[in-house]
Amino acid sequence: MTEPPDDQDHHDPLAAYRARFVGADQPLVYFDGNSLGRPLRVTGPRLAAFVEEEWGDRLIRGWDERWFDLPRILGDALGRVVLGAAPGQVVVGDSTTVLLYKLMRAAVAARPGRTEIVLDRDNFPTDRYLADGVARECGLELRWIDVDLDAGVTADRLAAVVGERTALVVLSHVAYRSAWLADLPGLTAIAHDAGALVLWDLSHSAGSVPMSLDEAGVDLAAGCTYKYLNGGPGAPAYAYVAARHLATLTQPIQGWIGADDPFLMGPTYAPAAGIRRFLSGTPPILGMLALEDMLALIDEVGMPAVREKSVALTSYAVALADELLAPLGVELSSPRDPARRGGHVTLTHPAMREVTADLWRRDVIPDYRDPGGLRLGLSPLSTSFAEVSAGLDAVRESLVAVTG
Amino acid sequence: MTEPPDDQDHHDPLAAYRARFVGADQPLVYFDGNSLGRPLRVTGPRLAAFVEEEWGDRLIRGWDERWFDLPRILGDALGRVVLGAAPGQVVVGDSTTVLLYKLMRAAVAARPGRTEIVLDRDNFPTDRYLADGVARECGLELRWIDVDLDAGVTADRLAAVVGERTALVVLSHVAYRSAWLADLPGLTAIAHDAGALVLWDLSHSAGSVPMSLDEAGVDLAAGCTYKYLNGGPGAPAYAYVAARHLATLTQPIQGWIGADDPFLMGPTYAPAAGIRRFLSGTPPILGMLALEDMLALIDEVGMPAVREKSVALTSYAVALADELLAPLGVELSSPRDPARRGGHVTLTHPAMREVTADLWRRDVIPDYRDPGGLRLGLSPLSTSFAEVSAGLDAVRESLVAVTG
Repeated sequence: MTEPPDDQDHHDPLAAYRARFVGADQPLVYFDGNSLGRPLRVTGPRLAAFVEEEWGDRLIRGWDERWFDLPRILGDALGRVVLGAAPGQVVVGDSTTVLLYKLMRAAVAARPGRTEIVLDRDNFPTDRYLADGVARECGLELRWIDVDLDAGVTADRLAAVVGERTALVVLSHVAYRSAWLADLPGLTAIAHDAGALVLWDLSHSAGSVPMSLDEAGVDLAAGCTYKYLNGGPGAPAYAYVAARHLATLTQPIQGWIGADDPFLMGPTYAPAAGIRRFLSGTPPILGMLALEDMLALIDEVGMPAVREKSVALTSYAVALADELLAPLGVELSSPRDPARRGGHVTLTHPAMREVTADLWRRDVIPDYRDPGGLRLGLSPLSTSFAEVSAGLDAVRESLVAVTG
Repeated sequence: MTEPPDDQDHHDPLAAYRARFVGADQPLVYFDGNSLGRPLRVTGPRLAAFVEEEWGDRLIRGWDERWFDLPRILGDALGRVVLGAAPGQVVVGDSTTVLLYKLMRAAVAARPGRTEIVLDRDNFPTDRYLADGVARECGLELRWIDVDLDAGVTADRLAAVVGERTALVVLSHVAYRSAWLADLPGLTAIAHDAGALVLWDLSHSAGSVPMSLDEAGVDLAAGCTYKYLNGGPGAPAYAYVAARHLATLTQPIQGWIGADDPFLMGPTYAPAAGIRRFLSGTPPILGMLALEDMLALIDEVGMPAVREKSVALTSYAVALADELLAPLGVELSSPRDPARRGGHVTLTHPAMREVTADLWRRDVIPDYRDPGGLRLGLSPLSTSFAEVSAGLDAVRESLVAVTG
């Protein structure tokens, strides 16, 4: 028998942080923080104060006083607290899709003569769609890494496809369906051995899995801020470009904010010297403020403690699934080894689409991904063990009800 | 002598709307609403309520319930209230730069065999930088319309350069320096006569100048929402694509939100049937809410009344400049004819850079644009005639002080 949830919460050193989030006092079971994290309680009043005191009072002066540098200030904070990146290599802005596009275009231009982009068939749709478009417009081909739905890209599988034709390898740090946690340093080294650049999508890992982009020698990375970074619906994304590439890599969306001297407004575009060259339009300030609040909290807790809680939560969910759901034919589609698992757990059964709809009606909110996958996203700082236990009980009840 | 400002405000039917904006009770003279509009008083509390009640309570369910369609709902509202566009042709998202990039790429792909992008040398830097990049990556050339700094693109000047080689004409509706208001229907017709597509940048006109994109037969348009649409610093932009082009035009940043069925997450990208194909990443919901508030206000007032006030404000500023500043050698660098003038007025003098710095110290906030241009942005719904009068008095005082 697994430990009762109350004992788990009692022994959880991070349990008190849950109260900092909006809605944590409600009975709702929220298993979708891996899609949209809960807001912090400080964020609403802070946005209202921003409108009144910063936008409303400083007006256009706000750009000089703080906003113009905010994409880099928050980028540096994200680098230090979450990504393992020294200052000057991370910038916040655009959407994940737009930043991934810029980085893919920058990368393939930096490897002229190479003809392939390598990625895996289970990468997030946007990554695959983007790579397909970039390959077509740049006259390259896609080369696929075969993966299993319940695992992901291993060293062997990557080594089997990269080579002297590979311009760029595009990988997800945590797979969006299975939660497979890739060996980021190991796979980066394999790509480099082939002379390729590597672009990591960190959307499903940043804020729940520690990483050291600098130490691993990563070239490029991007990710979203609305999952484990609680930036709010559609909050701006971030891009990482290793310092050694900043002088040479350029991106195609040439706007004034990425220009060397934005206010010179001269006749021709020259890219800014540093990471700002990966920006294009006016930075989305309002959308960045919730992220700033969450980064302060993660900084207070520290990523190692966040990961420890994350592993405890997913391990608890796996144990409960073994106990309550395996007898009903539910399979674990996430790695059983916590060292290879991100912050969510996927449970598969042919009836899970119906189960998900039934759970939503009971105020238990996971999400569903084809084929047959019930995804339980467990946000380390806002999910309690009691919530996991109540949620897994509900999954069992729904499954019994749905399968009659 | 010009009419005293108190009389002007007394007779202004829109005077009472000023009180709806944050900071309108302060002595600050704000002449930069053409760069960043003031927030509405309702916006701060509304953002706080959104965090608590919508993001915090509905969580991931918010996407199904409202957010997923918000880019198109707000796009339709913008089309109806501001742009003169029937539903289904406008979408909100990304930055102006990113949307202009997508539209330029879509346009040149739709005119294969044509080799030129036509634009004017005084177009906003981002438009020129983007066109330069798009031309280079697509193997096209830029062809420039010569303009005067104090005027803009006329029918003759455009007709002299467009032709059978022109794929796309990129124009600003209101020029960012001079406030020259282009003849949108007339220039569109000239581009069409040459078989070219036309892309209008509406950033400096939307919300202060009425327009009828559908009636004028415009192909493509984009603009920002943080100037006369008061969306907040770096708020999302919008794109217009005429319905007749929606089946054929595609853009290169292929993300899941622009895909035919985003939640199918299938192996290949197929663009959505309608305007959604111009989206890419997850829509920036938080950044759209202030725009929604401002659109409701403009809808209440109506664009014809907004324009009438705008013309009265700029005409008053021109009259005061003639009276107070012309004797000191200041020249009007905006059209004297209000029918050819947008919502700002540019006054030129070699000392204006220093004058601007001095004015900021006195809490009079215009902006400066090389060479020697003092830009006075007059937001129709938040600027009072008393503010214009106090501001022009201050310009005179500063100019006298600076030029000794």
